Amino acid sequence: MLTYDINNRGHMPVYEYLYRCIRDDIIEGKLKAWEKLPSKRSLARHLNIGVVTVMNAYEQLLTEGYIRSIERRGYFVEDLSKYGKKKVAEPPEYPPEPPEREYFVDFKANRIGLKHFPASVWNRFMREALSLQNDTLWKTVPYNGLYELRAAISGYLLRNRGMKVMPSQIIIGAGTEYLYSRLMQMFGRACTFAIEDPGYKKFAAISASYGNPWKYIPIDRSGLMIDLLEESGADVVHVSPANHFPTGIVMPIRRRLELLEWVSRVKKRYIIEDDYDSEFRYSGKFILPLFAQDTQNKVIYMNTFSKSMVPSLRISYMILPPDLLQRYIDTMSFYSCTVSSFEQYALARFISEGHLERHINRMKFYYRGQRRHILSAFRASPLMKISELRECNAGTHFLLSVRTRMSEEEVRQAGLAADLSLSMYSDYSYSDVPDDTCTLVINYAGIEQEKIPELMRRLAGIFPECRKD
Amino acid sequence: MLTYDINNRGHMPVYEYLYRCIRDDIIEGKLKAWEKLPSKRSLARHLNIGVVTVMNAYEQLLTEGYIRSIERRGYFVEDLSKYGKKKVAEPPEYPPEPPEREYFVDFKANRIGLKHFPASVWNRFMREALSLQNDTLWKTVPYNGLYELRAAISGYLLRNRGMKVMPSQIIIGAGTEYLYSRLMQMFGRACTFAIEDPGYKKFAAISASYGNPWKYIPIDRSGLMIDLLEESGADVVHVSPANHFPTGIVMPIRRRLELLEWVSRVKKRYIIEDDYDSEFRYSGKFILPLFAQDTQNKVIYMNTFSKSMVPSLRISYMILPPDLLQRYIDTMSFYSCTVSSFEQYALARFISEGHLERHINRMKFYYRGQRRHILSAFRASPLMKISELRECNAGTHFLLSVRTRMSEEEVRQAGLAADLSLSMYSDYSYSDVPDDTCTLVINYAGIEQEKIPELMRRLAGIFPECRKD
Repeated sequence: MLTYDINNRGHMPVYEYLYRCIRDDIIEGKLKAWEKLPSKRSLARHLNIGVVTVMNAYEQLLTEGYIRSIERRGYFVEDLSKYGKKKVAEPPEYPPEPPEREYFVDFKANRIGLKHFPASVWNRFMREALSLQNDTLWKTVPYNGLYELRAAISGYLLRNRGMKVMPSQIIIGAGTEYLYSRLMQMFGRACTFAIEDPGYKKFAAISASYGNPWKYIPIDRSGLMIDLLEESGADVVHVSPANHFPTGIVMPIRRRLELLEWVSRVKKRYIIEDDYDSEFRYSGKFILPLFAQDTQNKVIYMNTFSKSMVPSLRISYMILPPDLLQRYIDTMSFYSCTVSSFEQYALARFISEGHLERHINRMKFYYRGQRRHILSAFRASPLMKISELRECNAGTHFLLSVRTRMSEEEVRQAGLAADLSLSMYSDYSYSDVPDDTCTLVINYAGIEQEKIPELMRRLAGIFPECRKD
Repeated sequence: MLTYDINNRGHMPVYEYLYRCIRDDIIEGKLKAWEKLPSKRSLARHLNIGVVTVMNAYEQLLTEGYIRSIERRGYFVEDLSKYGKKKVAEPPEYPPEPPEREYFVDFKANRIGLKHFPASVWNRFMREALSLQNDTLWKTVPYNGLYELRAAISGYLLRNRGMKVMPSQIIIGAGTEYLYSRLMQMFGRACTFAIEDPGYKKFAAISASYGNPWKYIPIDRSGLMIDLLEESGADVVHVSPANHFPTGIVMPIRRRLELLEWVSRVKKRYIIEDDYDSEFRYSGKFILPLFAQDTQNKVIYMNTFSKSMVPSLRISYMILPPDLLQRYIDTMSFYSCTVSSFEQYALARFISEGHLERHINRMKFYYRGQRRHILSAFRASPLMKISELRECNAGTHFLLSVRTRMSEEEVRQAGLAADLSLSMYSDYSYSDVPDDTCTLVINYAGIEQEKIPELMRRLAGIFPECRKD
C-alpha cells in the first residue's frame, strides 16, 4: 500500500501533497507501468485522510494523464517507461542584472526630469478613464486605436501644424519602431528603403531585421540629396524635413519640391516623414510638414508623444494617405492595437482639453532658458578656443565641433573617465566623418543647472589642446 | 510694394499672416523668381506695422527657403518656377467611422464587465507610479521591461505555477502578438512553424505576414498528434498543453513526454507554450506547464494579463530558455520595450502585493457561478434534444455541438437575425469540420444573467429541429 507521511506536507493542501507524492513515484519508476493503485476508500483509511481528498488527488493525476481509470476495475499507472526518468533540473543561476551606470552627465539620455511632467492633470484623466460608466475602455480597442485619441490628434494637428487629417487616417501604436515594423511588413521585402546619412540609424536596423534592403543617402546644407536618392534606386525614403537630427537642418521649399517630384515619378515610391522633436522650435513658427504640402497622397506622417510628454508613455502615431490606408487595413489591421486603452483615453482628454499645447509651451520656455544657460557656459569656456557651436533651432540639442588630434574613441574614453557619457555626431553617421574634428551632440534637456560649471571643467579637461599649461 | 490687408488676419499673429501672404504669392507665382522684396523698414512703414514683425515674417520665409538674403543687397524670391504651382488640395472626405454593432449577446467577445475590475486598487498603484520620487519610470525602460515587473512575475509563477524563472529570462511586450512577431524575426524565415488544428489561427496570420511557412497539425483526444508533427517537417511548434482552445483538452503526461522527445531530436526545434486562460481552472489544481517539465531548455513560455486583468491593458510576457535568451539579446534587444512604464510599475505592485491572486480567485468564483448558471439553462433548454455540451475545465467557455441540417453559414445568419453574434468551432479550424453538426463556442464570461432566459429562447429558435410545432 502507498505510504506517505502526510505531516511532511508543509502548507500544501493534503490532496495536492498526495498528488505530488504519487506523481513523483510514477515519474521515478517506483510505481511501475500498469500497477493498480489502491481504491480511494482503502487508501483514505490507510493514510487516515478523507475519501474526498484521495479522490481529488486521483482526479488531478487522471487529468494530467499519470493514471487511467478502467471501469469497475480501478486506477492504473500509465506506461511512461519508454520516456526515461528525467528529473527537472534546477534552473541555471543567472547573474543578477547589473544596475545601469549613472554618469555625472549623460549626454545620450535626453529626457526631462519628472518635475516637469503635469502628473496631477494626467492622474486626473487616468482616474477618469478607470471610472467611466460606459464600457468602451474595457473592450478590445480597434486596430488603429481609440477613436477619441485619433480625433484629439486630428484637432491638435489642425490647430498646430496646419494639417487636415481625418481620425480614420491615424494609426496609434506603441512607439514609432512598432509603426515602422508594420509599414515594413506592408511594403514587403521587395521594397528598398532610403535613410538620411547622418540620420535615424535605427530605421536601418529595423529594415535589416525585416530583411528589407536599405541605402544611406548623404545630406548637404539643404538636407537629403535628391539626385543621390534617385540614383540609389530606393522606393521609400525616411526623412525629417522640419528638423533633421542631429544637424537641425530645415529642408527648404525648393528641396521639398524636388523631393515631392521624385516621389511622383514612380508609382510605388513613398515618403515617410518623421516629425520627431519638431514641437520644440525656438524661433519663428512651426515648419509646415511635407505631409501638408503633398498634393499626391504620397507622404506618410509619423510622430510620437515620447518626447513631448515623457518617454515612459509608449504612444506614437502615423498618418496614412488614402490608398495606403486601404492597403494597411487589408494587410495589417489583423494586428491588435498595442497601447493600453486607459492611457489612450487619458491622452485624448489631455490633448482635447488643451493641456498638450500648454505643456509644450511650458517646456519650450523651460528649454529655451536651459539652452541659453548652457550655450553661454560653452561660450565662456576655454573649449571655444578649439571648437565651434552649431545651434539647432529645434529639439533639445546642439552640436559642438572640436578640433583635436584625439580620435573619437579616445575622446569617448576620456569622457567616461570624467564620468561623462558622450554622444557623438558619428553615432548617427554611416559614412566616415573627418578625422581632425570630433563633433559632440550636446543633448541638454536633462542637464541640471547646478552641474554646469563642473561639467564645463570636465569637458574642457578632456582635450589636451585647451588645457592650460 | 506688397500690399496685404492686415485686418483680414482673424486670430493669427500679424507676422504669421504676413508670412503666409508672401508665401502664397511665391507659390502661386505672383511674386516672380529673383524679384527683390521691399526692405523690412519700408514694408513696415507701408503696412503700418512694426519692423520686428516684418523681420519675423522674413525670418520664417528664409528658414523655409522661400526667399534668400544676399548681403548688402536685400531679400530675393527663390526660383521655384520649375516645380509648377500646385495648391494643396483639400483632403478627401472619409465616411465617418461606423460604430461597432452591438448585439443582444456577442459570443465572440469574451470579456468581463468593468464592475469586476479592482479599479480602486489599480488606481492607487497608478497614482503611486506617477508620484515616485526616484526617476526609474521616467527613463527609457530596458528592452525586456521594468525589472520590478519581471521580478513580480517570477515570484507569481513560482507560487502559482511551480515555475522557477529568473527575472532576466522574462520579456515584457504589448500583447502576445507583439512577442510572437519578435520571435518570428529571431527565428528567421528559414524556420517552419506548426500550429494545432483547431487552435490559435492568428499565429498563422502572423507567420504569413513575416513570410514564414507554417503547417497545421491535427489534434486527437490527447491534443497535438506528435507523429504528424514529425512528418510535417516543422521546426517550432505552438501548443497550449494546459488548456487547448477551444476544446479544453489537457495534454496528458505521455503526450507531453512524446512532445519533449520530438523537440530533443533536432537542435533547431523549439516549443512555444501558450498558457492563455490557464488561470481559470475550475477543478483540481493548476496544470504544470510544459516549461516546468522541460529538462532541455527547449520551451518558450507565453502568457498575457489581457484575460486575467482586462483586455485594455496590453501587457504580455514570454520566458526564454538561456541559449535563446542570448540569441534574442543579440538580435532583438535593439527594439525598445512597448509597454508604458507607469502601467508596468502598477502591475508589478499589484502582483507583488498579492492582488493578482486575490483577483483571479474572485474571478474564478464568479465564473464558476456564471458557468453553473448558464450550463443549467442549457440543460433545461429544448436545444438539448439535438445537441451535446462539451464542458471545458478551464477558461470561460464550453462547446455546444448541435445536430442540424442547417449549414454553419445559415446558423450564423439566423444568429445575426436574432441579434446574436455566434462563435463557431470552425472559426478555429483549418481543416473541414463534419457537415451534420454545428459546434458553437459558448464564451460566457460577459453574458449578463438577466439575459439568459431570452438568450436560450433565441438560440433554440435558430434551429428548426427543436422548434415546437
